[in-house]
Amino acid sequence: MKQTVLDNILSRKSVRSYTDQPISSEQVETMLRAAMAAPSGRNIQPWRFVVVTGQAAKEKMAVGFNKMIAEAPVVIAVCGKTTKKTGEANLNWTADCAAATENLLLAAEALGLGAVWTACYPYEERMNPAIEALGLPDDVKPYSIIPVGYPAGNEMPKDKWKPENIHYERW
Amino acid sequence: MKQTVLDNILSRKSVRSYTDQPISSEQVETMLRAAMAAPSGRNIQPWRFVVVTGQAAKEKMAVGFNKMIAEAPVVIAVCGKTTKKTGEANLNWTADCAAATENLLLAAEALGLGAVWTACYPYEERMNPAIEALGLPDDVKPYSIIPVGYPAGNEMPKDKWKPENIHYERW
Repeated sequence: MKQTVLDNILSRKSVRSYTDQPISSEQVETMLRAAMAAPSGRNIQPWRFVVVTGQAAKEKMAVGFNKMIAEAPVVIAVCGKTTKKTGEANLNWTADCAAATENLLLAAEALGLGAVWTACYPYEERMNPAIEALGLPDDVKPYSIIPVGYPAGNEMPKDKWKPENIHYERW
Repeated sequence: MKQTVLDNILSRKSVRSYTDQPISSEQVETMLRAAMAAPSGRNIQPWRFVVVTGQAAKEKMAVGFNKMIAEAPVVIAVCGKTTKKTGEANLNWTADCAAATENLLLAAEALGLGAVWTACYPYEERMNPAIEALGLPDDVKPYSIIPVGYPAGNEMPKDKWKPENIHYERW
């Protein structure tokens, strides 16, 4: 068993404050490689990524609860193409973008970086500013917005192990 | 950087055929610990898990494209409570269940096991048999169904790195 992998999953935490230390393009690439390695329905890979460092766009996407978006050196918007090549709706795009987001967060943890999943879809009041800030085409929706930086504080992982959430054979 | 973590993310693959070798309860617990370490909106942790080994329930959930569900020694149904304690809808339950599913798949890979994400929600024709087989209450929906076993074949990870899916600053 690769204990390091499990330890990284268990030690990932939501980091909401960041130092000014910049994130390198190599670190961004590592996170995006992890994100793109996620599974996707019928291998459609509907995810699209917008890497944002500009302050104006970050501030536009920070609509309140997610104000740390404006304070991170890099923000990665995980977006999804909502249609298949045929034009039909791809009902799997949210699941695939979520898997990509989780991979990205785990890679950030492995890099010693701090990040937090801020949900965008399906909340219109979060999506509309992001669509505008990022200039997304009609068939691409912002799914999650991930601020990334070096942790400024000392956030700790939560222990969320709850055997009562497990059922055997039947509820 | 913890290279082992990145390597595990990049080497995770969808495994659709399994040997008869059983999965231990310790292995199941490790996968569930990883799943429950996922982030969730407002830390609600809406995920619920049903661990299935009984052949009748597995066969009921195997509705065609996902026939490997009937052939795996263990099947883990990742389900989600769709309401908050207040009774309001929790719009984040699918994202949270997806993050838990991805953590579970990465833990399976780390354990040397093979698994595959079979989507259940939002497809009625997949959800209804699962709801019945698992005896789920009204406010819990089956999100994904994950067959797990030792790989019988030699499935390889896909290279899905596509720089064209990355935009900088703006689409």
